[in-house]
Amino acid sequence: MADSGKSWVEIDPLSEFSLANLPFGIVSTKDRPEPRVGVAIGDYALDLSTICSGPHKDEELSRLCWGHSPCIIVAPTLNGLAALGGDRVREVRAALRKFLSGTTRPFSINPSGPLPAHIFIPLSEAQMHLPMVIGDYTDFYAGMHHAFAVGCMFRGPNNALQPNYKHLPVGYHGRSSSIVVSGTPIHRPRGQILDPSSADPKQPATGPSKKLDFELELGCFISRPNDMGRAIPVNDAKDYIFGYVLLNDWSARDIQSWEYVPLGPFNGKNFATTISPWVVHPDALEPIRTTGIKNDTPLQPYLAETVKENVYDIQLEVDIKTSGSDMSMTIARTSSKHLLWSFPQMIAHHTIGGCSLRTGDLFGSGTISGPSPEESGSLLEMSENGKKPLALGSSRRTFLEDGDTLVLRAVAGTAGARVGFGECSGLVLPPLS
Amino acid sequence: MADSGKSWVEIDPLSEFSLANLPFGIVSTKDRPEPRVGVAIGDYALDLSTICSGPHKDEELSRLCWGHSPCIIVAPTLNGLAALGGDRVREVRAALRKFLSGTTRPFSINPSGPLPAHIFIPLSEAQMHLPMVIGDYTDFYAGMHHAFAVGCMFRGPNNALQPNYKHLPVGYHGRSSSIVVSGTPIHRPRGQILDPSSADPKQPATGPSKKLDFELELGCFISRPNDMGRAIPVNDAKDYIFGYVLLNDWSARDIQSWEYVPLGPFNGKNFATTISPWVVHPDALEPIRTTGIKNDTPLQPYLAETVKENVYDIQLEVDIKTSGSDMSMTIARTSSKHLLWSFPQMIAHHTIGGCSLRTGDLFGSGTISGPSPEESGSLLEMSENGKKPLALGSSRRTFLEDGDTLVLRAVAGTAGARVGFGECSGLVLPPLS
Ligand SMILES: [Ca+2]
Ligand SMILES: [Ca+2]
Ligand SMILES: [Mg+2]
Ligand SMILES: [Mg+2]
Ligand code: NI
Repeated sequence: MADSGKSWVEIDPLSEFSLANLPFGIVSTKDRPEPRVGVAIGDYALDLSTICSGPHKDEELSRLCWGHSPCIIVAPTLNGLAALGGDRVREVRAALRKFLSGTTRPFSINPSGPLPAHIFIPLSEAQMHLPMVIGDYTDFYAGMHHAFAVGCMFRGPNNALQPNYKHLPVGYHGRSSSIVVSGTPIHRPRGQILDPSSADPKQPATGPSKKLDFELELGCFISRPNDMGRAIPVNDAKDYIFGYVLLNDWSARDIQSWEYVPLGPFNGKNFATTISPWVVHPDALEPIRTTGIKNDTPLQPYLAETVKENVYDIQLEVDIKTSGSDMSMTIARTSSKHLLWSFPQMIAHHTIGGCSLRTGDLFGSGTISGPSPEESGSLLEMSENGKKPLALGSSRRTFLEDGDTLVLRAVAGTAGARVGFGECSGLVLPPLS
Repeated sequence: MADSGKSWVEIDPLSEFSLANLPFGIVSTKDRPEPRVGVAIGDYALDLSTICSGPHKDEELSRLCWGHSPCIIVAPTLNGLAALGGDRVREVRAALRKFLSGTTRPFSINPSGPLPAHIFIPLSEAQMHLPMVIGDYTDFYAGMHHAFAVGCMFRGPNNALQPNYKHLPVGYHGRSSSIVVSGTPIHRPRGQILDPSSADPKQPATGPSKKLDFELELGCFISRPNDMGRAIPVNDAKDYIFGYVLLNDWSARDIQSWEYVPLGPFNGKNFATTISPWVVHPDALEPIRTTGIKNDTPLQPYLAETVKENVYDIQLEVDIKTSGSDMSMTIARTSSKHLLWSFPQMIAHHTIGGCSLRTGDLFGSGTISGPSPEESGSLLEMSENGKKPLALGSSRRTFLEDGDTLVLRAVAGTAGARVGFGECSGLVLPPLS
């Protein structure tokens, strides 16, 4: 990648936390439990507070980050940093790259021996927290191969996509209270289920979901607010993006299918959403911009982007680890380029009526599936809604079982300049009584 | 009402802010711009900060409210007060009633002459603010007469209600960022519209909504959080309620009808929601508890309440003031009892899958319409989706026009013990460029 280079921090060329990445997260340690801003580099979380003030202070980073009230560095969220705005965050990343670049350590850090652990926290010892305070969470449905596959399952190929699908980025308001950071276990939800869904009379029962699924998505955090009533033009929308995360929109298919007509998904989705701990800056993904799914429908002017390469070609992977086994099995591989709508288009659409966005708002892309079955971003697609179990070593899966750990991974870029988000994982626990 | 009585504050017997009410709000004044907790009494907002400390201090209120960090009284929201929990808030209301009761003023307040304006802020000089920081907003659909009328319009009487309607409180996640307090003007939204909705081919255009509507709803604020994964039993749910507001869920019917299949309302709703400034405590509504719409469907156990009188008989009124006129015209009168589901049932349903609620979360009841056409809680119903204009003096309305002010009012209880929320009003402005 263009902005890669050599660092005095030893970094495995295959590390997703190269000098080209520098994602932000919120970290704490056993020794120092206050959550604070960290930057992932190699096998470490660089504790920004230790180089913005004190004996190891970097003048430039201190000037950019210190002295805000409330503090934006020793803070339980990245919202303060994000609210600085695009140019200032860019300056912080540039100063970080400068601080970490070159072959010799800055003189304030021991010239040899292990890196001081209070500055460079080994990732294995870093407790990661939810990176942002999320005001509102919106989940879109821009993964057209997913929308088409699911539509075929329920309505057949001729009516698979609804008439509005190619005219606007379809989305719904999700639940922000239940968004958790990678590693947080999830309880299987209980709820009303009509089983079979064709039952007549339509008499539901209440019980644990038997169709617990994941959804592979890319998430996008908003930096700047807009005024209520004021639409964000699509070609300005990139200035409102703070960064990206991996997102698993856990879904209970049986609860969802009974509840969702006419007002959309509710308890089938709101029990949990997991995101990766590290927020990747858009500049880190700039080298892998590409074109998304071609939209053959004439676009309304407010959705027409000047830029053609409006999505990212991030390699995505879904792994399952079952309770009996220590082995992870990869069940899908695809790319984040399989979207019909870009995040700038989602922002333009979300605000066309005047809806206000706030710093820390989260957008989900919608489930990302590639065109082939091995590229499916959900078990609903892989198992054809439970009809075709997947072989997982000696066991089989239609939907998730208690004890399963679902892991999303992503990587972009070439050796020495790789970019990732950290894994987005969650263990499925049985429902609470 | 049971807890009414005589106050040394002169209160019009018709005032909605009787001693039986004592609703909380967030208030500021020109002289003192910091937002702080107020309590409505007669024509005043009692500034709680002036009687919780300083020369006019009431010992009991001071003990209950003062000394929290951050301060819960000189605070821009009621979240701190709400988070004290049901019993403590009850004690605060009891102490307020004691302070305001009787025929002579407490000795710390001038025995005669006008009430000191820094303690008793005339409501005409009180700037009201959004009362809570709202994490998540959920809008339900429990007004069955509304759901049935709208269903008839689009699917005919035999399929008017969806099969799930009487089994669960249908709801969707709304947008919290655009919730504003009464008096905030609203810009007419722009958006994609398919006009006519039967057009073939289905080619939308982008423009200002021509079907801007209101929805008459009751709102409910959550006090205590629950742990993620842990359902709230329906018979415990009342302990999670902080209080009630009037709510206008502004709706753009033409934007909504094009976008909402399959994931529910989005831009048709998210441009604005208006709530009343005063949050009424459940205890103030206790005397007007009644039975709601009878549900002939056997309920799932998690929705079965012990209490039969699970809704409130609050008289509701919708007024329009058009730009040309100074006169308000009442276009609907109904009661908040016309709900199929109670707020405790909505809480139980929202959490059955483990979804976490937080202090300050807001629930909307869904549009409240009575069984007769004069009791319609939306213009969609009154005008039969634009087919039958309403006469408003010399002008006519199918949907709202720029310059219209829409006002929701409510009152409960008898003379001398009336309970209201303050009005919930909004002026419609043209779209921003
Ligand atoms: Ca999703
Ligand atoms: Ca509504
Ligand atoms: Mg989710
Ligand atoms: Mg609304
Ligand atoms: Ni005084």
